[in-house]
Amino acid sequence: MKVGFIGLGLMGAPMAANLARGGHQLFLFDVVRIPADLIAAGGVACASSGEVAGRADVVITMVPKTADVEQILFSPGGVAENLSPGKLVIDMSSSAPFETRKFAERIGKIGCEYLDAPVSGGDIGAREGSLTIMVGGTDRAFERARPLFALMGRNITHVGASGDGHATKLANAIIVGGTMTAVAEALHVVKLSGASPAAVRAALKGGFADSRVLDLHGKRMAERDFVPGGPARFQLKDMRTAEDFAEKAGAHLTILPKLIEMYTELIERQGDALDVSAILLEVERRTRESTK
Amino acid sequence: MKVGFIGLGLMGAPMAANLARGGHQLFLFDVVRIPADLIAAGGVACASSGEVAGRADVVITMVPKTADVEQILFSPGGVAENLSPGKLVIDMSSSAPFETRKFAERIGKIGCEYLDAPVSGGDIGAREGSLTIMVGGTDRAFERARPLFALMGRNITHVGASGDGHATKLANAIIVGGTMTAVAEALHVVKLSGASPAAVRAALKGGFADSRVLDLHGKRMAERDFVPGGPARFQLKDMRTAEDFAEKAGAHLTILPKLIEMYTELIERQGDALDVSAILLEVERRTRESTK
Repeated sequence: MKVGFIGLGLMGAPMAANLARGGHQLFLFDVVRIPADLIAAGGVACASSGEVAGRADVVITMVPKTADVEQILFSPGGVAENLSPGKLVIDMSSSAPFETRKFAERIGKIGCEYLDAPVSGGDIGAREGSLTIMVGGTDRAFERARPLFALMGRNITHVGASGDGHATKLANAIIVGGTMTAVAEALHVVKLSGASPAAVRAALKGGFADSRVLDLHGKRMAERDFVPGGPARFQLKDMRTAEDFAEKAGAHLTILPKLIEMYTELIERQGDALDVSAILLEVERRTRESTK
Repeated sequence: MKVGFIGLGLMGAPMAANLARGGHQLFLFDVVRIPADLIAAGGVACASSGEVAGRADVVITMVPKTADVEQILFSPGGVAENLSPGKLVIDMSSSAPFETRKFAERIGKIGCEYLDAPVSGGDIGAREGSLTIMVGGTDRAFERARPLFALMGRNITHVGASGDGHATKLANAIIVGGTMTAVAEALHVVKLSGASPAAVRAALKGGFADSRVLDLHGKRMAERDFVPGGPARFQLKDMRTAEDFAEKAGAHLTILPKLIEMYTELIERQGDALDVSAILLEVERRTRESTK
């Protein structure tokens, strides 16, 4: 297949490499640089998003923000202006669901299909081709994209209609943030009481409190290993998108705003180079602050 | 072994029945009633906690609150007055860790051993003998009690010193409450946005957001099945004990007080007969309230 890939950063570059290894002809664009190994693997460097859209049949975007997606798609000389009917656009970024539905509608009007297909699993999952991919859009578009998803990910779910893939990614962010912070508060208290966080974590495994977060990040907290992994700043970015999504959906949440407040303060004080599990440091700081 | 069992309610009765099936001679007391099937199985009905302590070598308590444990142990005519040196007391209730350490010290002074060994797994786990048991106390006391624990539970961990078993149970309550409420907020938003909570839950399985709570209680939320299961009032009780524990440990928590506030309002409005996953109803109420 002729596949365009726009956004070749930490996630996009290894995802594109897996498509190239699967035998697909790549058309590549990034505002910073196009990795040499993708060119060496037969990829074609393009001068703009518009050129990618003109030459490829399927166009994938993997960029930081919803506003970046909008610009790539709809700015003058961008993707939309250069698509011809029958092509497929797949946004694999973590974008906002309601905006995504509007993008899909505009792309639909020019006779093309649109999928939202955000991922989780981090740069390790991107390199290993083991990402979780959550897809929103029509059955037809999903079936068309499936062979590409299979090269990039392992746990691939067609969740529902347009926007539902991005909604799932934001649900993921809320749940991971809430679980992470509860684990941090629990291990903080047991440590202050004189118990061993590592022993408590081990005792909870297999019970109702068990989770991937307790397993992977509880271990990091017990060992105080906060080198990412999945950076706290990505967690915060996704939770902020989730908060905006919740507001537009008409929901009034209690826990999510507290999580955003805590992660914001963590990054303000500790910088943005720490793992998502470093929320333990903010939990500890709040205790110190309260006893001043 | 001659085993005393004080507190024969929803949890204690089936736990004692498993000890009887294991061939142990039971001495039984409860302030309400002693179940007939335990007497039929050879158990001896005692007239007081003190009588249990005088006749059994190991005395187990399984009662609602820390204050109940204190009363059973130390009131006039209670357990402590009737113990002779060398006996073992095991508190399997969900009690407060710091108070437990004091109880253990007082029991130690009369030449007896003390373990805290709270459980999770609910009345189903109690009946099936599949409870998770989290134990605090000395190695020697743990080894002595292990054959009894093996009849009542499956996942049995010696976490650490006296009080650490109860600390683990409270960590469990914080993590379960936080994960539950985050799952409820996430599924609430996706539903309002038009996506399917059941499909989103299914898509998140296997990823970083996966947990026992998402699996069991996320399914209940998607199906709106709030018949317990594990009642919300037990979750609230344990979280309140955890809050008191956190305060005594010197921790200043952010998320736990919000969880307690939400569960308190849930039970005030919906009664105390719902499952712990019914926190979704309180999440939904807060949205309705905000748009009035």
